[in-house]
Amino acid sequence: MLLLTQNDDTEISECLEAQLAQVEQRFAAELISELPCVNSLVSHVERYHGKMLRPVLVLVSGMAASPHQQGLNEGHTVVATVVEMVHMATLVHDDILDDAQVRRGGATINHLKGNEAAVMLGDYLISHAYHLCSSLDSAWPSRVIADTTNTVCEGELLQLSHRGDYRLDEATYFEIIRRKTGSLCGACCRLGAVLSEASPQVAQSFYDYGMGLGVAFQIIDDLLDLTGMQRTVGKTLGRDLQKGKMTLPLIHFLRSCSDTQRSELIGLLEHPDAIDATDTSPPAYGRAVLTNTQRAQAVRGLIASNGSVDYANDWASRLIEQAKQSLADLEPSPALTLLTDIADAVLTRDF
Amino acid sequence: MLLLTQNDDTEISECLEAQLAQVEQRFAAELISELPCVNSLVSHVERYHGKMLRPVLVLVSGMAASPHQQGLNEGHTVVATVVEMVHMATLVHDDILDDAQVRRGGATINHLKGNEAAVMLGDYLISHAYHLCSSLDSAWPSRVIADTTNTVCEGELLQLSHRGDYRLDEATYFEIIRRKTGSLCGACCRLGAVLSEASPQVAQSFYDYGMGLGVAFQIIDDLLDLTGMQRTVGKTLGRDLQKGKMTLPLIHFLRSCSDTQRSELIGLLEHPDAIDATDTSPPAYGRAVLTNTQRAQAVRGLIASNGSVDYANDWASRLIEQAKQSLADLEPSPALTLLTDIADAVLTRDF
Repeated sequence: MLLLTQNDDTEISECLEAQLAQVEQRFAAELISELPCVNSLVSHVERYHGKMLRPVLVLVSGMAASPHQQGLNEGHTVVATVVEMVHMATLVHDDILDDAQVRRGGATINHLKGNEAAVMLGDYLISHAYHLCSSLDSAWPSRVIADTTNTVCEGELLQLSHRGDYRLDEATYFEIIRRKTGSLCGACCRLGAVLSEASPQVAQSFYDYGMGLGVAFQIIDDLLDLTGMQRTVGKTLGRDLQKGKMTLPLIHFLRSCSDTQRSELIGLLEHPDAIDATDTSPPAYGRAVLTNTQRAQAVRGLIASNGSVDYANDWASRLIEQAKQSLADLEPSPALTLLTDIADAVLTRDF
Repeated sequence: MLLLTQNDDTEISECLEAQLAQVEQRFAAELISELPCVNSLVSHVERYHGKMLRPVLVLVSGMAASPHQQGLNEGHTVVATVVEMVHMATLVHDDILDDAQVRRGGATINHLKGNEAAVMLGDYLISHAYHLCSSLDSAWPSRVIADTTNTVCEGELLQLSHRGDYRLDEATYFEIIRRKTGSLCGACCRLGAVLSEASPQVAQSFYDYGMGLGVAFQIIDDLLDLTGMQRTVGKTLGRDLQKGKMTLPLIHFLRSCSDTQRSELIGLLEHPDAIDATDTSPPAYGRAVLTNTQRAQAVRGLIASNGSVDYANDWASRLIEQAKQSLADLEPSPALTLLTDIADAVLTRDF
């Protein structure tokens, strides 16, 4: 993992690596079923483990909140596993929403096994997340997790209700991504800190850090759907455009462009799809269609002159600066340094 | 509600009715969002409240387990609301799996708002179910609920993995419906009893009652998909056949029929669908297609001579007898009588 080798403090890197291995073990153990058909589906999901940002946030926040001990307890491991399960569940259900075919370089569950299996597998993951969390003595982490998933669902529903809404304003865009992505990252950091017995005020600083980092992460994620390469990003690109999902560069562009440019962009967004993202064959019945990649290229070309991509990147940078600032008053420690490194890594997408 | 007027004991009927009104209030209060788009979706779901079998099981088991007090506590109301939310979430996601268009006489969420909204609304419901449950002082109900939803998801996944499997045996069918439907009804009764401080042994009797009742309920529900009228049952019928879902009468028929009958049945099950259940227009391109209703009628006609419908009904009756027997050693009370009435009502589908 890039992040770990970048950090100078070998001790903390090793500790984190060992903790993440425990999280992966817990994850697998919690999901084992008596039914072979369930285990076979779950095995597809385990390939989705990426850099495990959310468990990392729980664990490193836990270390940073108790700089003299750096000791993590059973609660940290459980909660780190729970947030990874919650995140996986949202990925599996998101891929149905996005009709995505590729995730982390492999086929998505919905593409492989159908939407029905994807719905149920997502439910199985979320159910086990709550199940594992309820094994803790304190009900408090369960309350925080359920409160957060309430908010995440609201974010997804708000986003859905604005599909194809070219008038979506920046405030609503931020409302969506704060709920959809920021809230879980914020909760990870708060949970990690409180499990290390941080005061409410310190826990709030960790929450603010996680929220800012999560929102910046989503801005960059949205940007990559437009400007990235499928091989690098490892998932189907151009889906946001295809599904009429307005993201920050498009919102900026539509606010600042000429009427002609606006018509051009909307024309591209509403242009008929190729049935399959990999289908580049000539359109049937002489009707012009666009693959997702072609559409993304055309949109990228159109908005290039207006600085809309830079605008979104600047927003993400400012949010990362604020996130780091939230931690400025805390006692310095290798874990705290690691948190600022993680924040920077979000911008360069090393995370 | 038919059940309440059938019962002689006015006091218990009134108590239950008042409790159910509280459950409906709690349900609505828990789901309120700051976002109007969320509230608008939730309002569709509230129409789905039927006879609220699962909350009734929690509440009446709670009363029957403390016959001298019949006092229900805050925990009963919360858990009764939680199980209704869990049930609603499974309905919303089930309708995506079944591609259903009608539920309790109204359009389904997936039909009305698309599969994406249905996925997220189901997630919102399940998240709020766990959220509400985690508000209790004890983490035990949360553990039972999450353990149960794990099992329900496994049942759904097992069922999915056997779609179109004409060799599905009776043992696997029962494994599916025990997990999918029996486990939640069993958990309702156990939770109700334990919240009234029942001993583990007594709680087990309540669980056995709920499990048997739930399995019988599912057998009848599956039968109605084949033999019912949409107007009476209030949901899209013939979907099990269309989706290749083997149910008890078909399993019995395929076990006992001639080779010719087997080919006829499989021919019907694999026959092309009409695109829409309401579409009875002549098939395009001269290709014969079947609406769900036509298919159900043809299957009904084919299996009529083999006693397969009676066979399934007999199974349900035996399970209901066993369910009632589970409660035989408990102290008689109006609530206990009500539980046996509820069991009988499952058979005549008054519940």
